[in-house]
Amino acid sequence: MLALVWDGAVNLREVPKPAPRPGEALVRVRLAGVCRTDLEVLRGYHGFRGVLGHEFIGVVEGPPASPRLGRRVVGEINLPCGACPRCRAGLGRHCLHRQVLGLKDRDGAFAEFLILPEENLHLVPDGLSDEAAVFTEPLAAALAVAEAGAISLRSRVLVVGDGALGLLTAMALAHAGTEVTLAGHYPERLRLAEPYGVAGFLEKDLPGQDFDVVVEAGGGPGGLDLALERVRPQGVVVLKSTYAGRYHLDPAALVVPEVHLRGSRCGPFPAALRLLSGGSFDPRPLISALLPFSLGVEALDRASRKGILKVVLDMRPEPGKTP
Amino acid sequence: MLALVWDGAVNLREVPKPAPRPGEALVRVRLAGVCRTDLEVLRGYHGFRGVLGHEFIGVVEGPPASPRLGRRVVGEINLPCGACPRCRAGLGRHCLHRQVLGLKDRDGAFAEFLILPEENLHLVPDGLSDEAAVFTEPLAAALAVAEAGAISLRSRVLVVGDGALGLLTAMALAHAGTEVTLAGHYPERLRLAEPYGVAGFLEKDLPGQDFDVVVEAGGGPGGLDLALERVRPQGVVVLKSTYAGRYHLDPAALVVPEVHLRGSRCGPFPAALRLLSGGSFDPRPLISALLPFSLGVEALDRASRKGILKVVLDMRPEPGKTP
Repeated sequence: MLALVWDGAVNLREVPKPAPRPGEALVRVRLAGVCRTDLEVLRGYHGFRGVLGHEFIGVVEGPPASPRLGRRVVGEINLPCGACPRCRAGLGRHCLHRQVLGLKDRDGAFAEFLILPEENLHLVPDGLSDEAAVFTEPLAAALAVAEAGAISLRSRVLVVGDGALGLLTAMALAHAGTEVTLAGHYPERLRLAEPYGVAGFLEKDLPGQDFDVVVEAGGGPGGLDLALERVRPQGVVVLKSTYAGRYHLDPAALVVPEVHLRGSRCGPFPAALRLLSGGSFDPRPLISALLPFSLGVEALDRASRKGILKVVLDMRPEPGKTP
Repeated sequence: MLALVWDGAVNLREVPKPAPRPGEALVRVRLAGVCRTDLEVLRGYHGFRGVLGHEFIGVVEGPPASPRLGRRVVGEINLPCGACPRCRAGLGRHCLHRQVLGLKDRDGAFAEFLILPEENLHLVPDGLSDEAAVFTEPLAAALAVAEAGAISLRSRVLVVGDGALGLLTAMALAHAGTEVTLAGHYPERLRLAEPYGVAGFLEKDLPGQDFDVVVEAGGGPGGLDLALERVRPQGVVVLKSTYAGRYHLDPAALVVPEVHLRGSRCGPFPAALRLLSGGSFDPRPLISALLPFSLGVEALDRASRKGILKVVLDMRPEPGKTP
């Protein structure tokens, strides 16, 4: 099969088609989204080598006994060992021996096929387009913010970053009734969240301070600078960005205002699928480019350019066709 | 009066005796403790200039109408403006215009006299020695950890740092029934917490990981390295140390394990006074040296030496005498 492989360089090349082990399903990928984390991998993040990609929608093609055979699915990306103390304590997502799709010891979704345990898969409702369903993983990560930040409907929330994750977070929080301000760098991106009632500002024009919760989804150290500047004393900063660099933290910036800095990663797929299926939340305007898989190398390059939002790879036999 | 003044150099010299304004009390200092934060001020922390010191016990000497005239007191160190939005929101401790005793725009406790608002003062119970009461401020800061860390009696807690704050934190948590491990560098200090049931280890010998809560009181970047290494996924790191340097934070170290990093500063004086008065909690073994105020410059120097724990300055007319 064709796969986009990272081994110090990115190449689209033939690799052996994977074979599911007991309990696993073979998924033919239909669409796969490029995440900023994929680009960070190319800069050294995680030390991963193999097939990239962890955002996808596909169709189960095997084994024949799979309960989801022939159905469209999305999939959770963490594969815990199931046996260690953390797994037994219900922290499988944090298993020390876990594999992570396209990020750690497990080939990912930028391929014609991928393998995941059946228990990682979620059915995609019939009415939901491929192009919306491919946002399930990042939208779940965005939804995790509300929990991590202890966000209530009384919270004044600032989201820093108008990349895909920042936009999804701002849109999802506002969709739930929260008062959301979004700070970014691109007026045309900020406008994408306006229909949800999000107040968008260029960072340099951002009014006010003392936000109860600031979500840092800027993708670099500057976002956390702004977050710590604008969060109120005893407030919460939810950290979503991972990047290969370091943030030079002044400990007094947390200790003196008694601020909480909370890391947040993956979120609930079922909630994301419900939101996407409800009809009033549509992430598709975030797609900057839908490219055939044959242009995979170019797609990664394009995703890293300034101003580009979500790039989606199309592996469907008839690219552009959605059920 | 004599005062220990920091203006780029430390000098013990004559300065005008301060005069209380309406609502303020004049306090004759009896003992004052040297805190690591004082030493950080000498390295540039906070940009403070003036009389150092914020840990003290003293006697109210004025004005004549003071309700605590002639009584021993300790004092909270934050002086909010009382009028700004933060003060009106109950966040006076975080008032942008606040003064902080010996740390920000307010002369401190390394002097014969200091001035504080009456509302900052707490009476010291008669049976409590000066030498124990001078620990009220740091013990209150230690007690704040339980709240900041959401520590329950089921929590496995690691305290990093065997300085005064680390020891007080470990001792206070263990005194309340919590399972506490203490990591430090000095066997003789670790032993001070043993009577409270604290399991002390040299950092290099520290067993286990996956602590529910890690309290970082190490006073430097190394403590946070150890804390992030040993906290369990979705666990809490309480950050107590402030220092003039920076910590080079790998954002993935918070995001991937979904760890919370919570800044914690001042704590409840009444609770600290109750604990000190109860008879079963005694911080006095933490005093490395009790020096007459005339040796103030030497005291600061000594406090900064390796292996020295709490240095206390004695301003009493008959040094060494406690009521």
